[in-house]
Amino acid sequence: MSKAITARNQDYSQWYNDLVLKGELADYSAVRGCMVIRPYGFALWEKMRDQLDRMFKDTGHVNAYFPLFIPKSFLSKEAAHVEGFAKECAVVTHYRLKSDPAGGGVIVDPEAKLEEELIIRPTSETIIWNTYKTWIQSYRDLPLLINQWANVVRWEMRTRLFLRTTEFLWQEGHTAHATSQEAIAETQQMLNVYAEFVEDYMALPVIKGVKSESERFAGAVDTYCIEALMQDGKALQAGTSHFLGQNFAKAFDVKFSDRENKLDYVWATSWGVSTRLVGALIMAHSDDEGLIIPPRIAPLQVVIVPIYKGDDQKAALDVKAKELVASLKKAGISVKYDDNDNARPGWKFAEYEMKGVPVRIAMGMRDLENNVVEVARRDTREKNSMSMDGLPAAIASLLEEIQRNMYNKAKAYRDAHISEANSWDEFVALLEEKGGFISAHWDGTAETEAAIKEKTKATIRCIPLNNPLQEGKCILTGKPSSQRVLFAMAY
Amino acid sequence: MSKAITARNQDYSQWYNDLVLKGELADYSAVRGCMVIRPYGFALWEKMRDQLDRMFKDTGHVNAYFPLFIPKSFLSKEAAHVEGFAKECAVVTHYRLKSDPAGGGVIVDPEAKLEEELIIRPTSETIIWNTYKTWIQSYRDLPLLINQWANVVRWEMRTRLFLRTTEFLWQEGHTAHATSQEAIAETQQMLNVYAEFVEDYMALPVIKGVKSESERFAGAVDTYCIEALMQDGKALQAGTSHFLGQNFAKAFDVKFSDRENKLDYVWATSWGVSTRLVGALIMAHSDDEGLIIPPRIAPLQVVIVPIYKGDDQKAALDVKAKELVASLKKAGISVKYDDNDNARPGWKFAEYEMKGVPVRIAMGMRDLENNVVEVARRDTREKNSMSMDGLPAAIASLLEEIQRNMYNKAKAYRDAHISEANSWDEFVALLEEKGGFISAHWDGTAETEAAIKEKTKATIRCIPLNNPLQEGKCILTGKPSSQRVLFAMAY
Repeated sequence: MSKAITARNQDYSQWYNDLVLKGELADYSAVRGCMVIRPYGFALWEKMRDQLDRMFKDTGHVNAYFPLFIPKSFLSKEAAHVEGFAKECAVVTHYRLKSDPAGGGVIVDPEAKLEEELIIRPTSETIIWNTYKTWIQSYRDLPLLINQWANVVRWEMRTRLFLRTTEFLWQEGHTAHATSQEAIAETQQMLNVYAEFVEDYMALPVIKGVKSESERFAGAVDTYCIEALMQDGKALQAGTSHFLGQNFAKAFDVKFSDRENKLDYVWATSWGVSTRLVGALIMAHSDDEGLIIPPRIAPLQVVIVPIYKGDDQKAALDVKAKELVASLKKAGISVKYDDNDNARPGWKFAEYEMKGVPVRIAMGMRDLENNVVEVARRDTREKNSMSMDGLPAAIASLLEEIQRNMYNKAKAYRDAHISEANSWDEFVALLEEKGGFISAHWDGTAETEAAIKEKTKATIRCIPLNNPLQEGKCILTGKPSSQRVLFAMAY
Repeated sequence: MSKAITARNQDYSQWYNDLVLKGELADYSAVRGCMVIRPYGFALWEKMRDQLDRMFKDTGHVNAYFPLFIPKSFLSKEAAHVEGFAKECAVVTHYRLKSDPAGGGVIVDPEAKLEEELIIRPTSETIIWNTYKTWIQSYRDLPLLINQWANVVRWEMRTRLFLRTTEFLWQEGHTAHATSQEAIAETQQMLNVYAEFVEDYMALPVIKGVKSESERFAGAVDTYCIEALMQDGKALQAGTSHFLGQNFAKAFDVKFSDRENKLDYVWATSWGVSTRLVGALIMAHSDDEGLIIPPRIAPLQVVIVPIYKGDDQKAALDVKAKELVASLKKAGISVKYDDNDNARPGWKFAEYEMKGVPVRIAMGMRDLENNVVEVARRDTREKNSMSMDGLPAAIASLLEEIQRNMYNKAKAYRDAHISEANSWDEFVALLEEKGGFISAHWDGTAETEAAIKEKTKATIRCIPLNNPLQEGKCILTGKPSSQRVLFAMAY
């Protein structure tokens, strides 16, 4: 069978690629590190995007659009930002091609060189704060609560479908406030929005925390994050929300006059999630048969497959199936009746398991006679015979049950993979044998953090919010520590 | 008053810019030719995008996403395409910056030169057909009905907000078919979808037609278009739908085996509309007081302004206004209660007229006593006292009446500006004195078309669909002509 998927325990990384490619979520492209998001993958991203967009709007944000290009000099205006983002990026140097005098094809026209090079945005703080300068004069212009859905480019050396691509799709919120407190509250609010989305819609539990200084966003005062755990025990940063202080306001000279007519720099936040979330979704839930997609963001929630011989049986099933489709749609459930006669039911079953459709309904002649259908749920692969009477309500509650079950399963796995390490040997053994999050004491220095990463590849994922203070000794240096932090191998 | 708008008859072009900037639809950016789409302008684009997206999906299309970058060599693969698109485009030549050894800032790292330059997509036929090659083997893989919402870049020398910007947002449909007939039917279907959208939602009548050879999309066999008329008598191409024949399939070697297992090249279409439509909307309907936005795509349909003195009056109005907001929302109408006490009612009235909100409701104490409100419609600026009883239904039908009236007004203007010219002098006089579409005989040659453009700047906007054949003589050369075509000055 051409669609066979590599098993997780055989080669986890190949399993993931198989799911993305054979599940028709994405494909490689002719451009190094860039992917094509295929219709099924894009439909999934659309469901996620639309829900996030509703949540952003419900918290008072509006969308806007800023240029793809950033003048090179803008990147240098914020000292930390340039270190983080000016290095691996796509640079536009020319604005014209011309026919190659030496033969066919086209060459870059050397006459059409830009005076100042343009960078394809790796993130938009600089171009946005350069614009905010003209929009903000007074406290009456604040807060500005703006979000942008956009493509960004970071010239990554090693790329992986969805998880790390040269170009990716994301949203970036950029807000401006009159006070530090208000900006911090916004940063935390958006972290909570992300956590709610990932937990309630993606069925994936997250740990909320703050990054250590070395993992902070380039230009931020504080970076808040949500961290999720994948089935191979590696962590994945699912979203970040940054309190930027007055750093960008100072870099772009954005001041406002307050109620007392006193001038001060504006306070800022930025926050983003990206198509990387699709990668997290796949890795966290799927199995060796294919994708498993939570009902609340599934592009297709229910598929109905008829099982018949000959046109008469088909005609009889068609009538019942179309009634069922109509009643499911009326109940707000997305459904497809797959009566394509080029494929056999068994092939269709495998195909929809591969695609992770939460519920499959099979209908044969005997079912029709007994007024039942066979309902298979994707998460547990259990099958049950269910009465046609009241089926839409039963399917709706089954979808909710699947959503809950997926979350609970992921949470049980995650909770079983948070371990404490109290010595270096314990730490290394946990990393090698069990994986997951490791809660351990750290002396708080960037040097130790770097040394631990150098020795083990593990990084500090976060200092959890409301972390209890606790005296202890750093697992590497033995120096005093005031709290445990969470380490993990990470994507 | 700082928000004063230049009058149309004083300086039409400045009037347009005033509307865009003072209506807060868009702003200039630090990057030459690129604009910032502000929240109000983006909300308008979102309404247009979401409706178009529904119409695409209703006609069986799905969304996907292809890379921003196109390898330079791809552009040369289709001979006509490279002529049209390889010239003015943004070229990425490097992928890294480094600290400037000569001082502050960053410079392009000469070591990080790409082997093959990448072009920022001006349109995506090439990268998409290079991908379709791997997706299409058999007639079973067809049709492919894919759309993409994306940003594109064309290095325009002269730019205007919304109408012609270096970077713009658009959608591009790219479909693949087993037969020529099916591809032509798709091309025409999408032209009809565009026409329906522009007429029924943007309230703007269009003429459907086919482009002359010189105005055809680079790489197309036929380009269908819809043409609208602006208030200054200039035409604006509002959307195009291209039958691409087998040109791109041949350039990228995309073949399929048909039912008889015979190999043939795939047939293609592409079609697009862009943020340019926002410019068309503004120009077609607005007046010297500001924007006029058709209710069906207005980000905000109704605004309620309270008129009061003191907190007691305010409290009384608040109660009634909030009931009204709830009942309007329940009727599916978007509404805002503007009780901001930093601005006076007169200032708010002017502001919402500027923003083109279709209906304004004013409520004072006397209104409250009489159980009425004052309702002002933006299109005619008429005011009426209306009973609170049954108001949501009355407002809903008023919004429909405004939508209809805007279309009828635009259509009456357009119809009054289609003239016949039967001689060169008549043609030139009409162009200079009246503007609009001029229906005239043309000998069918590209040379004559170019000569007419050279002499008058007028272009052939289209050969209308179902154009009646009629013997005549070309207005410029006097040579025989078989039909009239539509000329106009155009954006």
